[in-house]
Amino acid sequence: MEAETTETIIRATGRSLCEHGYADLTMQRIAAASSVTTAAIHYHFDTKEELLDAFLDDLVDRFEAQLACEAGDPRQRLATLLDSVFDADPDDEFPVALMELKAQAPYHDPYRERFRELDGTLRAVVEAAVDDGIEAGHFEAADAGEVARFVATAINGGHLRQVALGEEPAETRRVIERYLDARLGWHPEGSA
Amino acid sequence: MEAETTETIIRATGRSLCEHGYADLTMQRIAAASSVTTAAIHYHFDTKEELLDAFLDDLVDRFEAQLACEAGDPRQRLATLLDSVFDADPDDEFPVALMELKAQAPYHDPYRERFRELDGTLRAVVEAAVDDGIEAGHFEAADAGEVARFVATAINGGHLRQVALGEEPAETRRVIERYLDARLGWHPEGSA
Repeated sequence: MEAETTETIIRATGRSLCEHGYADLTMQRIAAASSVTTAAIHYHFDTKEELLDAFLDDLVDRFEAQLACEAGDPRQRLATLLDSVFDADPDDEFPVALMELKAQAPYHDPYRERFRELDGTLRAVVEAAVDDGIEAGHFEAADAGEVARFVATAINGGHLRQVALGEEPAETRRVIERYLDARLGWHPEGSA
Repeated sequence: MEAETTETIIRATGRSLCEHGYADLTMQRIAAASSVTTAAIHYHFDTKEELLDAFLDDLVDRFEAQLACEAGDPRQRLATLLDSVFDADPDDEFPVALMELKAQAPYHDPYRERFRELDGTLRAVVEAAVDDGIEAGHFEAADAGEVARFVATAINGGHLRQVALGEEPAETRRVIERYLDARLGWHPEGSA
């Protein structure tokens, strides 16, 4: 019951963040977006920052769970990772909301820690897939850590370009796929 | 005199943005950071958004002027571009302030237009330098537009990683230099 309430609050936080933006996000608005009262939200979370920290923590957990469930083939693991990053609903406001939190990271250490975790997970998944793929003879030899850093940096760049420039994320996906092709002699099917 | 006042206001806007952040930036604070009164600022700029738009416009102009003055050698032009992006004072708050404006771009079309101009300039400089360098026999053959898109995406990714993760920009510079080495058979001296 407790966990259910917390989850309801966290889901409402995500929706409210997308709707109102970071600066205008309040406990009242989160309550209005859920079946939970403002008092109940305050019972679980002292401040808006604490609530957003829980929201980011949940995001990291779901991202990790999503990538951990993947098939064993390292090519499939890389393709699934790119799908999970790039196959979003184009009307989704989530990238904008997430960018606002990233811009706030210098002022809130807990946010920064969550983003570092997310980055660590992303890079570890790429690095392991590249190493496994080289070992299995699917990919040409490469420095897996370097490939992982490249992929993470390009994904971050694509996120920023989507929000600041209004650019299609598919442009960045092509940049990554061309790089994988040049570096590993492989790219996901039907692309690059 | 007019131009001087405007310039004074724009400089003070940059300093105030770094000091207070986007949400807490006010005309009063900009006046306090300059020798110009709040009334005089209001005479030149109706809203905070208009003032920040002028600030970004000025930023684009200075970036263009900086890159236009470069020596003819295309290798030198690429090296200078990387220096101008990555050789910043590590204590400088400017990347954080700029990221806040980028996060606001979906809500303010004029900001978005400025960031698109900045991106267009950056990519045009890289593309021309790569094309000229290939023609002069300094670089291996490559699709200059693709190289330019890669460099711009990585620079954006590095900016976001610096702000959200607190990562050293030198990490991204290395990613770009390794890419240039692999793609063009060249990288700036003393690096990669």
